[in-house]
Amino acid sequence: MIMETIGIIHTSFKTKEECPIQPLYSPESSGRVEVFVEYEQGLKDIETFSHIHLLYLFNRTGEIKLVRPTFLDDEPHGIYASRHPFRPNGIGLSIVKLIRREGNVLLIEGADMIDETPLLDIKPYIPKYDAISSASEGWTADKKWRPKPEGRE
Amino acid sequence: MIMETIGIIHTSFKTKEECPIQPLYSPESSGRVEVFVEYEQGLKDIETFSHIHLLYLFNRTGEIKLVRPTFLDDEPHGIYASRHPFRPNGIGLSIVKLIRREGNVLLIEGADMIDETPLLDIKPYIPKYDAISSASEGWTADKKWRPKPEGRE
Repeated sequence: MIMETIGIIHTSFKTKEECPIQPLYSPESSGRVEVFVEYEQGLKDIETFSHIHLLYLFNRTGEIKLVRPTFLDDEPHGIYASRHPFRPNGIGLSIVKLIRREGNVLLIEGADMIDETPLLDIKPYIPKYDAISSASEGWTADKKWRPKPEGRE
Repeated sequence: MIMETIGIIHTSFKTKEECPIQPLYSPESSGRVEVFVEYEQGLKDIETFSHIHLLYLFNRTGEIKLVRPTFLDDEPHGIYASRHPFRPNGIGLSIVKLIRREGNVLLIEGADMIDETPLLDIKPYIPKYDAISSASEGWTADKKWRPKPEGRE
């Protein structure tokens, strides 16, 4: 199947190394989601939501490995038990705070993707569907944020 | 960009009409996520998580309209302010409960997709990233579940 870019996400992160991994670790980093004008109508009423899911393309990735150490842990984990960007199909998912809509542009906080990232989809974050506070943290439970290990992708 | 199917989601829903819209409305509907054996290694440690995101393809959809009434509301909303399946790029996102892993198969609860849905990606649901209980419900706040209106897609 073929996917098309519906917009571009603009952030202050120019390289993978600068990227903060998850919005949790970059709550104040702002960004601009530019939705191409031919899709602008699809944004109607998005401003009623405080948070949105962004689905985007990891387009500056490296070798895909099905099992690898990750940012949070030196132990290797499966790619489907991780949010690592080098993955089959390369779709990124971030929940960001929607600050304001200006026409075809969404101003967001919690941006954690590289500047000029191709946008695939936007879905409203709806707590009754999406906020499952009882879910387990899995293997990440006792892992703390740390600087990205040297040489680790 | 080209996406490839990494597996197949098996559920008891044979038609769009039978589908329960969101896992919230089908907490007990079980399903089987068959990950193709060439990707099985990527499942390592997924069983440590109680919930997972499934990203899949809406492959039996109809006409894409950027603004349309939805399941929850007769008022039209933008496609990006809605989870409606007929959307550009047609990527579905559901959070389901992971009951058990059996090799390359994941047994889930909360299945809300049609049988034989092509799987694109699996990401662990990690509450510290994904559970934002303070988020607003947007225009869905006062909408209640209802049977799908006659003739409504």
